[in-house]
Amino acid sequence: MPKISQRGGSMPASPIRKLVPYAEAAKQKGINVIHLNIGQPDIFTPEVAFDALHNLNLKVIEYSHSAGNESYRRKLAAYYRSIGIDVDHNEILITTGGSEALTFAFLSCLNPGDEIIMPEPFYANYNGFATLAGINIVPITSSIENDFALPPVAEFEKLITPRTKGILICNPNNPTGYLYSESELKALRDLVVKHDLYFFSDEVYREFCYDNHQHLSVLHLKGIEEHAVMIDSVSKRYSECGVRIGALVSKNHQLIETALKFGQARLSPPGLGQIVGEASLDTPPDYFISVKEEYLKRRDFLVNALNKIPGVTCPQPKGAFYTMVKLPVDDADEFCRWILSDFNFEGHTVMMAPGSGFYSSNDKGRNEVRIAYVLKQEDLAKAVMVLQKALEAYPGRTTGR
Amino acid sequence: MPKISQRGGSMPASPIRKLVPYAEAAKQKGINVIHLNIGQPDIFTPEVAFDALHNLNLKVIEYSHSAGNESYRRKLAAYYRSIGIDVDHNEILITTGGSEALTFAFLSCLNPGDEIIMPEPFYANYNGFATLAGINIVPITSSIENDFALPPVAEFEKLITPRTKGILICNPNNPTGYLYSESELKALRDLVVKHDLYFFSDEVYREFCYDNHQHLSVLHLKGIEEHAVMIDSVSKRYSECGVRIGALVSKNHQLIETALKFGQARLSPPGLGQIVGEASLDTPPDYFISVKEEYLKRRDFLVNALNKIPGVTCPQPKGAFYTMVKLPVDDADEFCRWILSDFNFEGHTVMMAPGSGFYSSNDKGRNEVRIAYVLKQEDLAKAVMVLQKALEAYPGRTTGR
Ligand SMILES: Cc1ncc(COP(=O)(O)O)c(C=O)c1O
Ligand SMILES: Cc1ncc(COP(=O)(O)O)c(C=O)c1O
Repeated sequence: MPKISQRGGSMPASPIRKLVPYAEAAKQKGINVIHLNIGQPDIFTPEVAFDALHNLNLKVIEYSHSAGNESYRRKLAAYYRSIGIDVDHNEILITTGGSEALTFAFLSCLNPGDEIIMPEPFYANYNGFATLAGINIVPITSSIENDFALPPVAEFEKLITPRTKGILICNPNNPTGYLYSESELKALRDLVVKHDLYFFSDEVYREFCYDNHQHLSVLHLKGIEEHAVMIDSVSKRYSECGVRIGALVSKNHQLIETALKFGQARLSPPGLGQIVGEASLDTPPDYFISVKEEYLKRRDFLVNALNKIPGVTCPQPKGAFYTMVKLPVDDADEFCRWILSDFNFEGHTVMMAPGSGFYSSNDKGRNEVRIAYVLKQEDLAKAVMVLQKALEAYPGRTTGR
Repeated sequence: MPKISQRGGSMPASPIRKLVPYAEAAKQKGINVIHLNIGQPDIFTPEVAFDALHNLNLKVIEYSHSAGNESYRRKLAAYYRSIGIDVDHNEILITTGGSEALTFAFLSCLNPGDEIIMPEPFYANYNGFATLAGINIVPITSSIENDFALPPVAEFEKLITPRTKGILICNPNNPTGYLYSESELKALRDLVVKHDLYFFSDEVYREFCYDNHQHLSVLHLKGIEEHAVMIDSVSKRYSECGVRIGALVSKNHQLIETALKFGQARLSPPGLGQIVGEASLDTPPDYFISVKEEYLKRRDFLVNALNKIPGVTCPQPKGAFYTMVKLPVDDADEFCRWILSDFNFEGHTVMMAPGSGFYSSNDKGRNEVRIAYVLKQEDLAKAVMVLQKALEAYPGRTTGR
């Protein structure tokens, strides 16, 4: 039997993969598993998206341009300009989700063995894209005590080697919900100029900023036009995760042309998704107002309720729809398994993503979990209740200091 | 300005990329460019596919399972069983086109620097997937004089090194239209068993076999269940290139599980495309009968007409909708450029894919072009006329011996 490749063997599994059998088993026993672990919004997709599909009038579903339909790229560029990002349609490559945009960015900018510095905790699939591309992630730890603010730029600088090709941030952040400030972004800007690095910014949660905080894109920064690479997606913005449409956006034309060659090899991004994505640009503004109100209500409820549980710490996230939570437990991996396999409160239990999966450094995040607030408030309320009762019963409970 | 990566720089361009500006210029001059270069069928997508979209009744377009919707995989497995391929739904990974299936196969089975042997000419984008994965394609030349039959297995054996991990064929073949015989496939079967190699078979043109020739899948072969890897796609079968749905199919579970990890990193294949792909499995049989009749009519017309042009040789393809054609010219790259930039017949010219782009060996295919018969017969007739007149006028004309 021929062997699988080493890189295939070393592809990381998702942080919750080990938990799946326990969740299945709980469901088998008739227990209601409340999923706090997922990034799939429950918010309805805008009507304009479905209208475009219902009114579809084609004879053949053809390949599109490898960079995406020009009409879509033009309209997307107009949207970016409307939020102060000065880009042209030929500075946009439509991709198969933000996922492919990240993959193309890594492949186009880094050679195998090259390094990219990222604040941790970070979106766990960056590990998979890095393994695919044969590159190394160099983590720099941001801490829950500090609300996951950007570590000092001097700390980044210490990690720079001849193999460092870029810095990546996710803004607003998954898993922390942190929104980077103007001064943090400007500090990184100076750093990438000084060391001639790429500045990758994953902005798929751009629309979800709360408390009147303004989102600042890497493409808003002046003087780093050749360095700045933005990753975008319709997945979260319009609750259209399934259409698999994202974008790689940069004013570095050499990069866009190089990424396009990877795009040409795979022929084109999804055609129906592009139709949906283009139509969704006409989503009425009150859609976003009510979606944001809904997330805000959930966040406020959740963060407040979590912080009331003895020993639990939860910073107030300023964006996205996740929060990292510190629990008074010895080992959150173990706790997340235990709560599924050994615990339920009135027939309910919860599935959470263990924090360690979002850290690249060993032994970080051992008492943290990521919770997504993509559920209705009543489900969140039930989940918090289950969590509180579980923490009271858990044998590995600590004081939470 | 940060540099792009070496692998990005070495990503191959498509064989027709250099010609695009000349085609554009011809169109600017009001010349009608007949596209013989494309693999985008003009055949209508089945009605059932559009019905599924028009009747879509969802509230949220969600991520699917990373391996694809189970309902789709089950129905697809039933289709395979109906053509004598014994697979189960968990031996199928739904991918973003056959393109992604190829990429996942390369990434999962080969390490950087490993080798895969392929008969050339081959589908040019294999070069791109190989560059992406950092692997090397080792070509073995099949020749137009021999109708592009499989080279003797002894020739393959000579090319095997410790880094050889597999053999790849495309069956029916793009660009040659060749359909591999049972004895050819069995010879390769013995070879992969002897050397413990993967046997990759790209079967995206399976439905297009003519003259009562039967298609034999790699998964029909007995005794190589752990070696056989099939690549599939809805793109050509249902004229659904734009939905970006393919599949990786293997009874090697370790391989499917490994490929799934790449699948999990990118979350899920296109959701709307899966709905279309699943619905398309209910396409009525007479759809395929009439599509095949149409292609057959075109093939017969085209091959016959081409062979009537003095100095032109065109084998009779048994499958797909391409043919490689030998022209009486010094350099087909140059001829394909010249016909666009310097020639027209009554306001018409043709765009063809130069043969050299489908060979990995230098200096092969220099007097060949690939022609796709995805146009109506009247357009093919016009194109053949243009070609004949152009060959009469072309300064680099040879005798065609
Ligand atoms: C931070 C971040 N980036 C990128 C993605 C990829 O999303 P998609 O490929 O659906 O656009 C996700 C999805 O959860 C994410 O959380
Ligand atoms: C031989 C072959 N394999 C694979 C593909 C990829 O097709 P898709 O990604 O649309 O399934 C093509 C497309 O032309 C092809 O000709």
